[in-house]
Amino acid sequence: MTSGETSSGTAQTNSASALVQRIRDGEITASEALEAYLARIDESEPTVQAWDYLARDNARKQAEIADKARRRGAPMGALHGVPLGVKDIIDTFDMPTQYGTPLHKGRRPRTDAYAVERLRSQGAILLGKTSTTELATYAPGVTKTRNPHNPEHTPGGSSSGSAAAVAAGHVPAALGTQTNGSVIRPASFCGVWGYKPTFGAISRTGVLRQSPALDHVGVLAATLQDAGLVAQQMMAYDSRDSAMRPCAAPDLHQAASELPPVAPLMAFVKTPVWDQADSETQNAFGELAQALGDAVTELALPDSFAHIHTMHKTVMETEIARNYHRDYERGADQLSDSLRAQIERGREVRAVDYIRSTESIGALAAIADEILNDYDVFLTPAAPGTAPHGLDSTGSATFCTIWTYLGLPALSIPLMTGANGLPIGVQLVGARGDDARLFRMANWLVRSVSN
Amino acid sequence: MTSGETSSGTAQTNSASALVQRIRDGEITASEALEAYLARIDESEPTVQAWDYLARDNARKQAEIADKARRRGAPMGALHGVPLGVKDIIDTFDMPTQYGTPLHKGRRPRTDAYAVERLRSQGAILLGKTSTTELATYAPGVTKTRNPHNPEHTPGGSSSGSAAAVAAGHVPAALGTQTNGSVIRPASFCGVWGYKPTFGAISRTGVLRQSPALDHVGVLAATLQDAGLVAQQMMAYDSRDSAMRPCAAPDLHQAASELPPVAPLMAFVKTPVWDQADSETQNAFGELAQALGDAVTELALPDSFAHIHTMHKTVMETEIARNYHRDYERGADQLSDSLRAQIERGREVRAVDYIRSTESIGALAAIADEILNDYDVFLTPAAPGTAPHGLDSTGSATFCTIWTYLGLPALSIPLMTGANGLPIGVQLVGARGDDARLFRMANWLVRSVSN
Repeated sequence: MTSGETSSGTAQTNSASALVQRIRDGEITASEALEAYLARIDESEPTVQAWDYLARDNARKQAEIADKARRRGAPMGALHGVPLGVKDIIDTFDMPTQYGTPLHKGRRPRTDAYAVERLRSQGAILLGKTSTTELATYAPGVTKTRNPHNPEHTPGGSSSGSAAAVAAGHVPAALGTQTNGSVIRPASFCGVWGYKPTFGAISRTGVLRQSPALDHVGVLAATLQDAGLVAQQMMAYDSRDSAMRPCAAPDLHQAASELPPVAPLMAFVKTPVWDQADSETQNAFGELAQALGDAVTELALPDSFAHIHTMHKTVMETEIARNYHRDYERGADQLSDSLRAQIERGREVRAVDYIRSTESIGALAAIADEILNDYDVFLTPAAPGTAPHGLDSTGSATFCTIWTYLGLPALSIPLMTGANGLPIGVQLVGARGDDARLFRMANWLVRSVSN
Repeated sequence: MTSGETSSGTAQTNSASALVQRIRDGEITASEALEAYLARIDESEPTVQAWDYLARDNARKQAEIADKARRRGAPMGALHGVPLGVKDIIDTFDMPTQYGTPLHKGRRPRTDAYAVERLRSQGAILLGKTSTTELATYAPGVTKTRNPHNPEHTPGGSSSGSAAAVAAGHVPAALGTQTNGSVIRPASFCGVWGYKPTFGAISRTGVLRQSPALDHVGVLAATLQDAGLVAQQMMAYDSRDSAMRPCAAPDLHQAASELPPVAPLMAFVKTPVWDQADSETQNAFGELAQALGDAVTELALPDSFAHIHTMHKTVMETEIARNYHRDYERGADQLSDSLRAQIERGREVRAVDYIRSTESIGALAAIADEILNDYDVFLTPAAPGTAPHGLDSTGSATFCTIWTYLGLPALSIPLMTGANGLPIGVQLVGARGDDARLFRMANWLVRSVSN
């Protein structure tokens, strides 16, 4: 493979941004668009199994309402008529939210997550709930989703269904979440765009609490523009989420079409886990960095970053032990061995060690921001390689851990392909709050490589 | 004693509010005012020992600068020329900040705490650092401050010097902090006003981190107006303190002169620690409630509040163990037995128990806010009785614990006097964020009792 090969994605021509415009212009109705997506689902869902729950009739009603609104000249939202998928750990009042575990089978929240409310208020049509791993951790969940590029391979996780649904063209975009590598990794494995915003940019109200110090809502999408368009609708202050600060949402949809105002400079960081990347990935990134010439400098991360993987584990396992306490107490036998072990380790963590780890987040993130005064973004792998064979594991999140821990915005770009024909994502990571610059850089990178 | 007896305080006639007006009007210069306060310090400081550090010459220079500014017609701040004391755990760039322990002897911070910066920018003159207990915990610190009403009695703690300095008329107001009962208790014991604002209302940047989930900056003052005037200058958003939200500061100075718009209703709560109050205090509150007639209803706190003292201890000791880690490691032998024991207990707390406790804060505070839809304030003792005899202990904080934990704004009103001639404070507690209503109620209460 070469870094110049790009996987454009089947759904590119059906982007949400284009669809909204066509609906506005009367070229297509929301109902017609929805039927086209449903037809694609019919085609590949038996193999892919991206969905835990599909609300076809409910979606059809939503599309009819959208079309009626247009006909009577009502104002149309930024996502008017766009079908979206929602990861099944994000609450929806009109569909179950079952967390990928039999322990919450049939769970029906009464209200929407705040992020979902925001999408509905912009006219989005929620088509269904996409599969998640068990309680959004490492083990595959109730629905065994497959990689649309090769059903013998994992789609990654924990936002398995959202990545697979977008890759299969079932929807132009879907919501995911990331506590370690749950947006970026499946995006890389499935060859779609994955976007994990700055920590605190999107409310987690109504989203399964896994590890509040680390939980992020993100987006999987067929195009960069769509990732921005969908994400920015959700970026509204919610006082119930203590990670948030009132802050004007960046226009990411716009930034996705812009170029950096000055010649870009990326810091290629191999990170302390570089030796976990397979040789194909290592070579591909070496070639990519070389091809980009002056725009890339290799940079060693500060020594203080060496312990982040350990501290991330301390924080995540402790908070999982706290938040999945009832599941453990009432149904430990229905949990996977790996999750049970995580909870048991987390229960033993001492509070002083937990606090020390959580406090390091801000201090280290400030160092990263400082580095990003001299560079636009970090360039680094999204995953150790292409999607692993088999469905028992969802692959390694290790190349995402540092950025999730620090709360830095990250994108996985579907830019490369392995010898086995499966995608390899390129991860760009920006400074906290500077998501728009990250989007401009991603646009620049894709254009540069395509030339 | 009767609840009708009020202790007006010697400094009432020299209130900060009045002083600023007199300086503005040219009736007195800042330098003259300062000399009057310094003379009072000369008189009683040898007995009271309220100050860890007095910067007489520095204060004189500040006063000269203030007077020059007035003469040349420069704008004058809300505290122009007002001498203030600063608890010695709050950083000042021009004076040491030594935390009341030999372990930090000679410590010189390079910058002001944000709260101090705010006061300076309003023209306040920082006279010196007031004594604190050891690292703002229970044991008396390096300076053995005495109660100005009777030097054989404790002034309370940990804001010992601030309360004593105000009670002795050394300054019209001084900064304190409260993690359990460190503003309200010494205010009660010393017969001055004590104000602990809503959690997150005043930045803790540059203040000794004891227990970030519980630490509050507060004010001790000779009058309610002064407590409001000084506190509201500090109420400015500081993004470095994650407990803060951008929020317009209430005009507490104004509210301190207002009356409630409708007939007030106070909930007299005896709290789960009522039996720790001595009989004199129990009787005094019984009489006070009766004297206020229709304006007071006795109310039992919800059962869920019964565990707050235990949870407060878990959170505070854990965070103390974390934040005083280095002091323990390098100087355990120079710590008091009680603080060493707190740290050792805190080190053993499990993270899941710590998190469970911190999470309960928001849930229980919401219940308190809900109750305060039906009442204006809680009325409750500030301390179990008058200041205890002796200087080895700073007395019990138990009547403050619930309100500190929940982050509710509280005032100690110097309203009553015990048979031994020492003050007994009346504590009013408001809903989070409704500090102005609390001030109006305090003004109403004092007027009602004085009539």
